[in-house]
Amino acid sequence: MDSRTAEQRARHLDIPAMLAPAANYELSVEHDGLVHLSGQLPRLGHAVVVTGRVGLDTTLAQARDAAGLCTLRALAVLRQALGSLDRVARVIKLNVFVQCGPDFTQHSEVADAASDLLIEVFGRDARPARTAVGVYQLPKNAVVELDLIVAVHAAAHPLENPKHDAVD
Amino acid sequence: MDSRTAEQRARHLDIPAMLAPAANYELSVEHDGLVHLSGQLPRLGHAVVVTGRVGLDTTLAQARDAAGLCTLRALAVLRQALGSLDRVARVIKLNVFVQCGPDFTQHSEVADAASDLLIEVFGRDARPARTAVGVYQLPKNAVVELDLIVAVHAAAHPLENPKHDAVD
Amino acid sequence: MDSRTAEQRARHLDIPAMLAPAANYELSVEHDGLVHLSGQLPRLGHAVVVTGRVGLDTTLAQARDAAGLCTLRALAVLRQALGSLDRVARVIKLNVFVQCGPDFTQHSEVADAASDLLIEVFGRDARPARTAVGVYQLPKNAVVELDLIVAVHAAAHPLENPKHDAVD
Repeated sequence: MDSRTAEQRARHLDIPAMLAPAANYELSVEHDGLVHLSGQLPRLGHAVVVTGRVGLDTTLAQARDAAGLCTLRALAVLRQALGSLDRVARVIKLNVFVQCGPDFTQHSEVADAASDLLIEVFGRDARPARTAVGVYQLPKNAVVELDLIVAVHAAAHPLENPKHDAVD
Repeated sequence: MDSRTAEQRARHLDIPAMLAPAANYELSVEHDGLVHLSGQLPRLGHAVVVTGRVGLDTTLAQARDAAGLCTLRALAVLRQALGSLDRVARVIKLNVFVQCGPDFTQHSEVADAASDLLIEVFGRDARPARTAVGVYQLPKNAVVELDLIVAVHAAAHPLENPKHDAVD
Repeated sequence: MDSRTAEQRARHLDIPAMLAPAANYELSVEHDGLVHLSGQLPRLGHAVVVTGRVGLDTTLAQARDAAGLCTLRALAVLRQALGSLDRVARVIKLNVFVQCGPDFTQHSEVADAASDLLIEVFGRDARPARTAVGVYQLPKNAVVELDLIVAVHAAAHPLENPKHDAVD
């Protein structure tokens, strides 16, 4: 058994430190023990770095890399919102939207790249339910977008407001 | 600070008074402090009034108008279900589906029209998490569809059944 | 009034007995009285049996049959996860993704096939909110995919782990 915390397991990952929503919404909303995350694109900084249609002008490997980048962004959002990934009790639902060509059928293999990274950080017992669909066109021509619903533990110190500079 | 209630801020909006689901589902389901809304199309009465593909045969401005109409429908559903928009504590999640052409990338600008109207009514602190994707074809050829998850305050008088004619 | 339980009303349906997720996720996640289901495809056994684009190379009747098969899978997942369909208190939300041609507009008629079956089993009072959209390409070229959020009653014996062989 892996007794490390989520933060310990995430230490080698390149999770961005500071994020701001690109438009008029919140990156996540915590309510009554659940966190709903906004859709995450495969960004490095502000730039969407994996674009195109998988099965047409983008490869499955590139789409899987993109799903990994989306997941790193989701981890960044969670860490920023919660103060620590260790507050995540369970990933409840993972929704994966794949921008694909008309003959693409391997959505599960794209979505697995996100699932694998979530499980690496939160452990196998945190495996989510999942829906993966192939959509026509994503914001910024991104090849993948995903969002999450996550169950969280109550904050250790609920009166303390997590600060960005507390993120390691 | 704006100390008006949501109903006061919504007074100038043209929110339809009575709605019935178009098919075999509920317009919304309230459970344990959350309301899940069914997908809303840009309707006036029963007619879907903004159709087509944004970026192809429909403009961004038209798609933003459509997102506004969808949001008015969502407000109508919430008012009908809750008796008053003042029972809305927080918009948790906004999902926006845009029927678009193959090169469209400005989903966020369409979704912002919905976010802006929600924030106008419920205030900036009620900003939701959001996912926007571009889908291939929407019901009735609508250019936009959206749904919401909303957190609500307990009913002031839980034994009292909200009546349609109590809607102002 | 129909006083039969959900299991009694489901007795004549061909609900599969044993299911395992096809990839790295859970078929469903129960948390705090809600169950989120993974996206269900129109499978018999492991094979996706209704493929293609409705409105192009697949008929509306075939898509409705597919929505029924997806719903049977969802019922199977719920029965397996909960031990009995009788633990379902309410279907909160039904999301239906239809793989369709560019002129298809009858998404509601496809989704109604799922709604009808859910209401047949859980009763009219369990009617969900619903969102139906037309997507570009689904996993395995399936014509329909759907997922659910369901509210559940607490397990009668929370310490007892539901066994597959307890399914009738």
